[in-house]
Amino acid sequence: MVGGGEGAYIGGIHRFAARLDNQYELVAGAFDINAARGHAFAAENFIAADRSYDDFTAMIAAESAREDGVDVIAICTPNFTHYPVARACLEAGIDVICEKPLTSTLEDAELLAEVVQRTGGFLGVTYTYAGYPLIAEARQRIAAGLIGQVRTLQVEYPLEWMATGVELKNNQQAAWRVDPKKNGRGGSVGDIGTHAYHLAGYVTGLKAESVMADLATFVEGRALDDNAHVLIRYEGGARGMLWSSQVAIGCSNSLRLRIFGETGSLMWAQEQPNELLFTPLEGNSQVIKRGRDDLAMLTRSRTRTPPGHPEGYIEAFSNLYSGFADALRARDVGQEPGQAGAAVPQIYDGLKGVAFVDAVVDSHEQGTVWMKPKYC
Amino acid sequence: MVGGGEGAYIGGIHRFAARLDNQYELVAGAFDINAARGHAFAAENFIAADRSYDDFTAMIAAESAREDGVDVIAICTPNFTHYPVARACLEAGIDVICEKPLTSTLEDAELLAEVVQRTGGFLGVTYTYAGYPLIAEARQRIAAGLIGQVRTLQVEYPLEWMATGVELKNNQQAAWRVDPKKNGRGGSVGDIGTHAYHLAGYVTGLKAESVMADLATFVEGRALDDNAHVLIRYEGGARGMLWSSQVAIGCSNSLRLRIFGETGSLMWAQEQPNELLFTPLEGNSQVIKRGRDDLAMLTRSRTRTPPGHPEGYIEAFSNLYSGFADALRARDVGQEPGQAGAAVPQIYDGLKGVAFVDAVVDSHEQGTVWMKPKYC
Amino acid sequence: MVGGGEGAYIGGIHRFAARLDNQYELVAGAFDINAARGHAFAAENFIAADRSYDDFTAMIAAESAREDGVDVIAICTPNFTHYPVARACLEAGIDVICEKPLTSTLEDAELLAEVVQRTGGFLGVTYTYAGYPLIAEARQRIAAGLIGQVRTLQVEYPLEWMATGVELKNNQQAAWRVDPKKNGRGGSVGDIGTHAYHLAGYVTGLKAESVMADLATFVEGRALDDNAHVLIRYEGGARGMLWSSQVAIGCSNSLRLRIFGETGSLMWAQEQPNELLFTPLEGNSQVIKRGRDDLAMLTRSRTRTPPGHPEGYIEAFSNLYSGFADALRARDVGQEPGQAGAAVPQIYDGLKGVAFVDAVVDSHEQGTVWMKPKYC
Amino acid sequence: MVGGGEGAYIGGIHRFAARLDNQYELVAGAFDINAARGHAFAAENFIAADRSYDDFTAMIAAESAREDGVDVIAICTPNFTHYPVARACLEAGIDVICEKPLTSTLEDAELLAEVVQRTGGFLGVTYTYAGYPLIAEARQRIAAGLIGQVRTLQVEYPLEWMATGVELKNNQQAAWRVDPKKNGRGGSVGDIGTHAYHLAGYVTGLKAESVMADLATFVEGRALDDNAHVLIRYEGGARGMLWSSQVAIGCSNSLRLRIFGETGSLMWAQEQPNELLFTPLEGNSQVIKRGRDDLAMLTRSRTRTPPGHPEGYIEAFSNLYSGFADALRARDVGQEPGQAGAAVPQIYDGLKGVAFVDAVVDSHEQGTVWMKPKYC
Repeated sequence: MVGGGEGAYIGGIHRFAARLDNQYELVAGAFDINAARGHAFAAENFIAADRSYDDFTAMIAAESAREDGVDVIAICTPNFTHYPVARACLEAGIDVICEKPLTSTLEDAELLAEVVQRTGGFLGVTYTYAGYPLIAEARQRIAAGLIGQVRTLQVEYPLEWMATGVELKNNQQAAWRVDPKKNGRGGSVGDIGTHAYHLAGYVTGLKAESVMADLATFVEGRALDDNAHVLIRYEGGARGMLWSSQVAIGCSNSLRLRIFGETGSLMWAQEQPNELLFTPLEGNSQVIKRGRDDLAMLTRSRTRTPPGHPEGYIEAFSNLYSGFADALRARDVGQEPGQAGAAVPQIYDGLKGVAFVDAVVDSHEQGTVWMKPKYC
Repeated sequence: MVGGGEGAYIGGIHRFAARLDNQYELVAGAFDINAARGHAFAAENFIAADRSYDDFTAMIAAESAREDGVDVIAICTPNFTHYPVARACLEAGIDVICEKPLTSTLEDAELLAEVVQRTGGFLGVTYTYAGYPLIAEARQRIAAGLIGQVRTLQVEYPLEWMATGVELKNNQQAAWRVDPKKNGRGGSVGDIGTHAYHLAGYVTGLKAESVMADLATFVEGRALDDNAHVLIRYEGGARGMLWSSQVAIGCSNSLRLRIFGETGSLMWAQEQPNELLFTPLEGNSQVIKRGRDDLAMLTRSRTRTPPGHPEGYIEAFSNLYSGFADALRARDVGQEPGQAGAAVPQIYDGLKGVAFVDAVVDSHEQGTVWMKPKYC
Repeated sequence: MVGGGEGAYIGGIHRFAARLDNQYELVAGAFDINAARGHAFAAENFIAADRSYDDFTAMIAAESAREDGVDVIAICTPNFTHYPVARACLEAGIDVICEKPLTSTLEDAELLAEVVQRTGGFLGVTYTYAGYPLIAEARQRIAAGLIGQVRTLQVEYPLEWMATGVELKNNQQAAWRVDPKKNGRGGSVGDIGTHAYHLAGYVTGLKAESVMADLATFVEGRALDDNAHVLIRYEGGARGMLWSSQVAIGCSNSLRLRIFGETGSLMWAQEQPNELLFTPLEGNSQVIKRGRDDLAMLTRSRTRTPPGHPEGYIEAFSNLYSGFADALRARDVGQEPGQAGAAVPQIYDGLKGVAFVDAVVDSHEQGTVWMKPKYC
Repeated sequence: MVGGGEGAYIGGIHRFAARLDNQYELVAGAFDINAARGHAFAAENFIAADRSYDDFTAMIAAESAREDGVDVIAICTPNFTHYPVARACLEAGIDVICEKPLTSTLEDAELLAEVVQRTGGFLGVTYTYAGYPLIAEARQRIAAGLIGQVRTLQVEYPLEWMATGVELKNNQQAAWRVDPKKNGRGGSVGDIGTHAYHLAGYVTGLKAESVMADLATFVEGRALDDNAHVLIRYEGGARGMLWSSQVAIGCSNSLRLRIFGETGSLMWAQEQPNELLFTPLEGNSQVIKRGRDDLAMLTRSRTRTPPGHPEGYIEAFSNLYSGFADALRARDVGQEPGQAGAAVPQIYDGLKGVAFVDAVVDSHEQGTVWMKPKYC
């Protein structure tokens, strides 16, 4: 693991996720930009002292030289460092699990895609919400035609935590997110809008044709948007609305996706992830619960407990980790991955996400005009 | 009453609303374009035979000549007829309660506004949802500064019932709604988007500065939109998203309004109208229930039962009717109306609604560009 | 109407209910035990002065003598007066709509049943919740076997409003409810437990075989229970739990019924009355909405608006009133009532309710033992 | 670990729970009554071959002899084996984490309590639901007097999965649960009623004074109850109702607890575990969310992610495991445990649970009479 040490939020989540299904062992790390702090953290986490490194360069050099070196490195650092770290890993023959957004600029993302292609390495992207069991179910049902051709979708990802200037109050999580150099061009759009955009595409299989955005910055002093209203036109005629906000008081982590097709609709909310609402044309809404035997194979394989035993965010994250493991094992033996491995976000998903942010910011800067994302 | 006879939906609602609070008596009508059918309907509804008229012209002539003629006429006909009927009433000195949208064209709306001004008559518009008690509460709380300055709002009004071509299946309600001549330029926008737009403005007091729209027609053969995605910029910097849809499977009548300010938020959904969710900055969400003693005066005056005894659509409609009665009684004695009378939508609200439809359709037709509504 | 004047709660509800469907006209009343206050109230409510009476005796005498005398009298007085007023009406040939519980003692209830039988008069009881459209739906579905034989049911009716000694604070509504002479033997059991008990029997068609109760009085100084826990055994082997409480903080009017059969279950909550949850064995829960075309005939006839347009308590009350009207019209022409008229609670329902209260209080007083209600 | 091999449900949960917080390592086991199958399972789970044992006797002998022998053994076998396995562990100086109910008979439970006392060993009981963060919050709030003295509580735990005779269809989980010899005297009461009973006592601190029960067996051929209705009287005057059911169609794992005090109430439902509803007297209900900074210390220590990132059943189970670890570490250094260690269910909780089942079955068998549990 690179980054994710003391005080980091997402690093801990990666560790929970890796541990839960017993398919990974955390054996090495460069956990902190402050090396001493990183070594202390490593010690507390049962990492052998000789595998706690000062920085990612040292780590990659040493681990790629070891017989028993790491198979894969998780990158949990701020956005702008994803590219150099991931490139170094891949060049050294180490696979990568990378936080989203893939990079802070589209150029970096394109360069990284080129590295992946050239090295043949694996790069998984943790679009967490793609790991929920009922998201797999929704995806499978749409692919099977159960709601007909999609007409319109509504996706939103509002948060409250940056409703005031928390970045000025020694909140590190907030500080780099409002710094264009570290975060990239998109504020709420880059941080959470990309999740929403990815999820909508992941579930429906639709490709965006053009986007149009009205960005706003409500908290004084911010250089980036903290609220984004986006219209989307998809290939084939479907339409979408996307709202991301970091200033939506009352919304904890309120990602929600609603998809309306010709013959049915689906609704899923991240804060109640164990239920999927399905409504057939002119019929009663049905509450589909996680953990039932009649769900899709992938849904079931992503589930550890029966219905009524809530699973949540950590389990979804673990599902991605297990999917990455599945994909890696399959590749190592020269086979196609199973459903779990095939379903995880990879380099192209990351590239699309960064292209989305670029198109959205360009649209806004040019006066809210239709803009085609470079990758979709 | 003009229109609203056998098979009409909204006419019956007007009658329930007028009756509930015992402030109106229905004594005359021209209920149907088919005079015979209208007379039959009148008889069933205890209307004296000599006050059941062949058409609105005859009715207005006779009633305005009677000593005991009607005080006010409710107009429940398709959109394109609102203007001529309302004008005739007002010219004859009879006040008007008119369905929304006010008219099918902006010219008609402007002409009607001129008639109201000239005659001094009263014209109330039944933006039903403005009549809910907790909408009054939300409005009062925002006016009192309880959520601070509004930053962003999300309003939506999705329906399922026109998800297929019901207009081809002898459904009169649908048939005129898809005919631009009878309905006006806005499909879902005119039918329900205007409700959503009005409600957002009514509750927040915000005035739209510009709108931008992406309209779609998903059911083949329709000349008007059946799905609208709209971005709004309000004076003072607030932003909004508005979605209206007639093809949203699973949505019965799912008007919902969420408003996010600097220090709090409010959420209200028409299908659960007896609760208002209020969240202060960094605090717990609170479920505010209709019928409690600590609510605003207008909220309480719009409530007939204690909390836990659900009130709904008919009661909201009645609240508008009682508000119209209050406004009329006040005017008749030369006084200012009370809170109930002051809170009802009138001619200018109607005019704004038609201007909104025009701006939205113009925006779309010009390639989804920012467009300023003529009245706001 | 007898009772229901200024300051009374339920009288106003009866008037809303009578008015909504335009099947009743309120023409006479003895509204208040204080005659002057009653006359003032009558005047405000457009009652002719000569039909506002000093008391019910005068009213019944005068109205039964008039050619155009009232057809039916609504009794909205405290429990202990139901019997004398109802008896006087029936003896004078006037039909009765009576609040629940039917009477304050079982003897009165039995005497009244005898009067009904002897006079052939009609006595409807306003078990309000039986008037909700989706209650009719649940009843019809169970009768049709859609959940199989009922195994267990859970019914509860908790309220908050008497959680403190409000009867000492000049609250008339509370004052008579805690006085055994005016209210009868059951506190929460008589006031709201009877509603819950009636509803469970009404929907399932089950007859109670025995009940067992643990009553409690939590607010000091009360002579009657304010919280009741009741076990029920029904004929045929079904079991039930019933909870009524007047001290349940957070519960506005939270009547809820859940019924579990061999092949499915149904759940309905009075505060969200427009939805009925139906779950078939091993299937997904389905949200059945009021107002849909595929519901039972009686459900649809009790509905005034499409799904998504909430109806509530007043509408449910109106459904009973319309059902009473249907029953009376049918009787007057010597026919069987339609579904609406057949579905309303009448004298035997009232008698069962009082017998339930008696059995519950007896069970408790004898140390919480099984007790068979005299009528069931 | 003893038991919990292939096909077992709860064993897997114990392993997830042990792993998540990285405080346990699974190094030895006797996973299956079929030794060969147990060894195969061990191999798949990375257990060294020499620490996969034929049975628990062999395991305890070998492990207690090893320098690096296990610290603690988790018992995941059917109820009737808990006693012999736990005793053997404790006698050998190995601590125990035991599934609930503690034993299948009260005698066994008493004997085991004696063993714990004599050996000074630790025995934690996995009353899972006590591990939820917001249960800790509710407990702390009640202890702090935030709802005043408790008056009444409603607790229920209905399930659907045994609504038909699944025990006859090769379902091992169901088979031993309907066998009095393996399961003990309580059917639904022993399986899930004990969870509900424990949770109510755990959160409120109340001790039961007497219980009264009406048990039923709805699925033909069962020797034990599959539905239980229980009344509870607590010391100090509070009253409770408890419902457990294995035949409640539509209920996945629907444990729910509602507590009403003199000045407020609390409501928590296991299927939505990230929210706790708190209502102060005459106030608005507040939605308290897991993960907020203003919650009790124990609540926060049981939380891994911010609000809006759902945690569930596995996390709750992990909280117990981490609490056990905390208690064990404290004991090993001769200190008092921290809040986490102090909050876990131990031997006396287990004993109380078995005494509850005994009292409930006795009450029912004697005709539904008040019965005092031997331990409370």
